[in-house]
Amino acid sequence: MASPLRVAIAGLGTVGGGVANLLSTNAALIASRTSGRGVELVAIADQRPHDDLKQEFGPSLGNSQYFADAVDMARSGCADVVVETIGGYGIALQVGEEALRSGASLVTANKALLAVHGENLAVMAEGTGTSIGWEAAVGGGIPCIKVLREGLAGNNVRYAAGILNGTCNFILTTMKETGRDFDDVLAEAQSLGYAETPPDLDVDGIDTAHKISLVAAVATGCKPAFDSVHVEGIRAISGADVSLADKLGFSIKLLGIVSTESDGTVKQRVHPALIPVTAALGATNGVLNGLFSVGDFVGPVFSQGPGAGRDATASACVADILDIARGNHVPTFGMPFGDLDTMVTSGMESREGRYFVRCASGEEGGVRNALQDSSVEVEISAELDGSVGFITGSVAENIIMSTIGDRASMIRVEGPW
Amino acid sequence: MASPLRVAIAGLGTVGGGVANLLSTNAALIASRTSGRGVELVAIADQRPHDDLKQEFGPSLGNSQYFADAVDMARSGCADVVVETIGGYGIALQVGEEALRSGASLVTANKALLAVHGENLAVMAEGTGTSIGWEAAVGGGIPCIKVLREGLAGNNVRYAAGILNGTCNFILTTMKETGRDFDDVLAEAQSLGYAETPPDLDVDGIDTAHKISLVAAVATGCKPAFDSVHVEGIRAISGADVSLADKLGFSIKLLGIVSTESDGTVKQRVHPALIPVTAALGATNGVLNGLFSVGDFVGPVFSQGPGAGRDATASACVADILDIARGNHVPTFGMPFGDLDTMVTSGMESREGRYFVRCASGEEGGVRNALQDSSVEVEISAELDGSVGFITGSVAENIIMSTIGDRASMIRVEGPW
Repeated sequence: MASPLRVAIAGLGTVGGGVANLLSTNAALIASRTSGRGVELVAIADQRPHDDLKQEFGPSLGNSQYFADAVDMARSGCADVVVETIGGYGIALQVGEEALRSGASLVTANKALLAVHGENLAVMAEGTGTSIGWEAAVGGGIPCIKVLREGLAGNNVRYAAGILNGTCNFILTTMKETGRDFDDVLAEAQSLGYAETPPDLDVDGIDTAHKISLVAAVATGCKPAFDSVHVEGIRAISGADVSLADKLGFSIKLLGIVSTESDGTVKQRVHPALIPVTAALGATNGVLNGLFSVGDFVGPVFSQGPGAGRDATASACVADILDIARGNHVPTFGMPFGDLDTMVTSGMESREGRYFVRCASGEEGGVRNALQDSSVEVEISAELDGSVGFITGSVAENIIMSTIGDRASMIRVEGPW
Repeated sequence: MASPLRVAIAGLGTVGGGVANLLSTNAALIASRTSGRGVELVAIADQRPHDDLKQEFGPSLGNSQYFADAVDMARSGCADVVVETIGGYGIALQVGEEALRSGASLVTANKALLAVHGENLAVMAEGTGTSIGWEAAVGGGIPCIKVLREGLAGNNVRYAAGILNGTCNFILTTMKETGRDFDDVLAEAQSLGYAETPPDLDVDGIDTAHKISLVAAVATGCKPAFDSVHVEGIRAISGADVSLADKLGFSIKLLGIVSTESDGTVKQRVHPALIPVTAALGATNGVLNGLFSVGDFVGPVFSQGPGAGRDATASACVADILDIARGNHVPTFGMPFGDLDTMVTSGMESREGRYFVRCASGEEGGVRNALQDSSVEVEISAELDGSVGFITGSVAENIIMSTIGDRASMIRVEGPW
């Protein structure tokens, strides 16, 4: 039997501490699920003094060696797997590079790191025959990357859409349930600890963009192309948008979407979207996340679960660790990096789809006339408190934008569900 | 680079033909996703003459060798993986045993075979160091076994519930949408090809019982114990049940459930259950399947997708094939067979939960009095067309049964969601 898999954790914050706790709490289960091999925490790195960590984490740290410097730990070669839970691009990148260089595999929840430096890290991992496990980077505890990278491996995935940011989903769900406006609900989310201060990475869509660029790489078989993601956040969503959409049978969600168009170009995009309340993603509420993918053979597959939280994120990191302990390996983005294509992207103006158009009641006639003049069908409409909302038929986005001008606002309606 | 993975397909029916077609159609993608190795169809077995198969399946059969006898093919050692798509326990079992004995891995959609002969096959696979891939046996195209066996590998899973039979879900969904009765909708489902004649395996819950016994083995870390599954089908569900449940905010679904109780016993059960329409399983309609699992660290995780169909099932078989081509291996039930416990089960009488109780309007007073005398709370009630439905508070099942006697019928309300 192989000796226990040696794990080192860089950064004993929320996620890192959660991983140590899970490995310790479920050690017997983990031994069985690795055919007796087991997993041993051999090293930890944190800026805080060792005694403080021992006091906070107690026996879950076992006999692990302490490093004040995470890069030193990664460089030391003491582990088979380094779990990077520091975040950001600075020390985290050094930890990842040194870990891979030392011959260790890397497990990380750091979507920003992979979205920006994934190419470099994936190539390094191939060079040393190691793995990069990043299940926790997308969808928190949901094994959605495993579903996509392994479960749907025989499929071309030409459409995937996900609710990938729990903060935004909490805000939009609360706006819908209470009728309150964005700023008001954001302030509450911050006081509850569901949103950071400043909240920009979440509410401006950057976090979702990092995640969808990683999903897009696996789905399309192309190199990650974070810079070409079209990104809109949720600051412009008003209580009137949410209430009118609800009246029309839709939820408004911040989606990360990747779609391969009929001309072969790829649209990677993050924006608010209307989804029927009866669709699985439309009913993914609060801090839940969900990822919906369509494979050319399997059809639609949907995964839902907790998008954040200490224990859920630790569960995803530990799943990656157990894959490695079992000797199982999948290339970082599902195929050797050299086999990935260069993504050819296209812009939003050529998006074909339906739209939710909202205007003041006094503008209704003008907007209806303009839509009619552009041969845009109105499928349904509703009025509420001085605002009118329309759901249009399918049309190219540049036509909608030139038609409504300044008289109305627009949110895309997404499908297929 | 390793030579192509050699695949043999036993039985070119719906699923087997679908696997051949997928392997051929997406061959280039599959080569990339196996780091260049690729998958080669080297043999096929079917009772029909080779010329008929060549005519039906054309180039997707490649240069595969033909066998009239599937057992001969499995015994020949011509393949690294044998895909068994014959069904049943007869020849299918021989094919599985001969394949494993020859040193090949086994991929199968045959839930009945694994539920009844899984122990024997799993032990054989361990003896020869081969894999048994059975993703397609539960939930059709949904990678839900991968989610449970790998994605949640660090978790104790004490509750899992699934809609695992598309025929029953189509019938129950249609009953709800149209207000029609069971017999009427069953006849339609049979005429549409969604239900077999006789429909017993599906509508009496046997198929779901096979599947939940496999889920239970992985979730609990116990040997499969199909014989101890409590099984009820959907024949007794009336249009009045469905309509009253709908009025109370619930869908009626046939669920397979495994739960580990506070005393450590396991309840494996298949029965109709009321689920809130807003819960993900409650909104899993038509021929969709879904599996909801609760891990002690990750919390609730839900997977949904097509539960049947040629291409969806083929997608799941091919995912198993690609795991093997990638050199990845997980024990049949998630840990070595010898590490699995013997399941200690308990009966339905000790189930604690809520209930939907229905009686004729004329019996309402008597039933309310009886429930009150047994200290069973009534949370909500509704009346429709001469029937009354109650949702009770949580109580042990033997109390409900002795309380309502012959005056009313009962369907369980399930949670947590």
